[in-house]
Amino acid sequence: MPPRRQANHLVGVDLGGTKIQVIQVADDEIVASARRDTPPGGGPEAVVSAVAEVVGELGDTKGVTAVGVGAPGAIDVGTGVVKRAPNLAGFDHPVPLGPLLSEALGLPVVVDNDVNVAALAEHRLGAGVGSDDLLAVFVGTGVGGGLVLGGQVRRGPGGVAGEIGHVIVRDGGRRCGCGGRGHLEAYAGRAGMERTARKRHDEGTKTKLVKLAGHGRMKSSVFAKALEEADHLAQELVDEAAQALGAALASAVALVDLDRVVLGGGLGDRLGAPFIEAVERETRERLFVPDAPFAVVPAALGDLAGARGAALLAREQ
Amino acid sequence: MPPRRQANHLVGVDLGGTKIQVIQVADDEIVASARRDTPPGGGPEAVVSAVAEVVGELGDTKGVTAVGVGAPGAIDVGTGVVKRAPNLAGFDHPVPLGPLLSEALGLPVVVDNDVNVAALAEHRLGAGVGSDDLLAVFVGTGVGGGLVLGGQVRRGPGGVAGEIGHVIVRDGGRRCGCGGRGHLEAYAGRAGMERTARKRHDEGTKTKLVKLAGHGRMKSSVFAKALEEADHLAQELVDEAAQALGAALASAVALVDLDRVVLGGGLGDRLGAPFIEAVERETRERLFVPDAPFAVVPAALGDLAGARGAALLAREQ
Repeated sequence: MPPRRQANHLVGVDLGGTKIQVIQVADDEIVASARRDTPPGGGPEAVVSAVAEVVGELGDTKGVTAVGVGAPGAIDVGTGVVKRAPNLAGFDHPVPLGPLLSEALGLPVVVDNDVNVAALAEHRLGAGVGSDDLLAVFVGTGVGGGLVLGGQVRRGPGGVAGEIGHVIVRDGGRRCGCGGRGHLEAYAGRAGMERTARKRHDEGTKTKLVKLAGHGRMKSSVFAKALEEADHLAQELVDEAAQALGAALASAVALVDLDRVVLGGGLGDRLGAPFIEAVERETRERLFVPDAPFAVVPAALGDLAGARGAALLAREQ
Repeated sequence: MPPRRQANHLVGVDLGGTKIQVIQVADDEIVASARRDTPPGGGPEAVVSAVAEVVGELGDTKGVTAVGVGAPGAIDVGTGVVKRAPNLAGFDHPVPLGPLLSEALGLPVVVDNDVNVAALAEHRLGAGVGSDDLLAVFVGTGVGGGLVLGGQVRRGPGGVAGEIGHVIVRDGGRRCGCGGRGHLEAYAGRAGMERTARKRHDEGTKTKLVKLAGHGRMKSSVFAKALEEADHLAQELVDEAAQALGAALASAVALVDLDRVVLGGGLGDRLGAPFIEAVERETRERLFVPDAPFAVVPAALGDLAGARGAALLAREQ
């Protein structure tokens, strides 16, 4: 008979486009963790092997009762099928990731979207504690979102709820990476901001952003550095990002009535408190009920939000 | 002992700014109805008396077990308090309408927002049957909305969910009646369209709209008539309304994942099928997942949606 504490052990897997982060938790405490690169080729088979390997590195997993996985893309939570995950090699068609992993690990496996599990973690353990109606927004290369309504993650009939990045803030406006126009992500995602910065630079606007980026992509740290150096274009783009977030969040509050927004992701974390405050101010100015209880708060769980949420998912399913 | 059928009788009250419509239902069939004008003065007391009177006109209400009320404004469903209802005289402060009516009628009374109960009726008995995730949009003087998620009306922590009319479609754009900028209602509400039409007319744009309106307000029928007569400005404003609805609805689908929109209200009904089709087309062009199951359908219950939904509310609480 295993020790009593072990009956509660769960594994959370954050399967990203570049990294696989795995943790083992007992009573919401992390007792082991492991991490490796996501295989860049080899398709679903290689990914399943890699996840099984890194779970094996956790050590003593005898007491583990279930595994939760957060994966990028469109997921059918009921069946564990990843319908499409453009950021994973070989996942451009439906892959029964849950069943494959369950067979490889000999454990029940439940799969959900990576942003949904991160939102779940922030709601249960992080910056969302105390609110049952919140949106977690992760501002990085793109803008992802996870919606918690009445204390439950909202997935919707197609499993695609929470896509705040593709809410329209200016109909017919700036082109988004998805092809749409005027989406939040076109104004507040790092990639959209980089496209605009390079275009403006090519058109003759003076900026340090292009030089700071060098030959690589214009990282979140580049925007942060340029702001420190009082670069006008960087300030303009970050202001636009906060305004677009304000518009999209005010729309979200009008439609579903939320009392909190948890803001994280690479760009959100880098730009820190002044950005969080700007987003709250821009949202509040646009609220239909201006005196409604509402706050924008920084995400609390950082890079581990996905793995922690995946472990919660394993417990709750 | 009353006859068995009567155990199921319920009363639904649609308390509007101008009319009070009351029905009595048994097994979802209307068995009696009555209607009168809303008292223009006299405050909450006069409104409670008027509702009690018109309920009395239903005839035999011995078998009635509960009363549901749909009222304009912000409602606390749990307590039956109307927090604020600008369209009802004397309701500019919180009024315990549920308890007051319960005392007057000697029956349990439950109160919700008029648009929420209309959405409930369309979901359970009308154009929403078959969908558990829908938005009912009523396009009239303003643009109201009721959100049904997972088969339940979404109210939210502040009780103000569903306000699609105040979703932003163009940040910084046209001024809304509420003071905000770029809201859907500024482009697709009859009052906003009238403001734009009169402004454009004053600026020299040729249009029949102002002449057709005469000395009164520019009713939905005026827009319909001007369209029939191929008035360019009327067509432009109706096209803009459909585009703004498309943007707001695409945002709603991205955020909460809906498979149906029920479109009604005075302007929606008047403009009919071509307008419904235009709104569906404009929404579909903007969907983040373009091939998702999604349809815009006309509301089915007309003016009785509010009273029918109020009766459903009485049954379900």
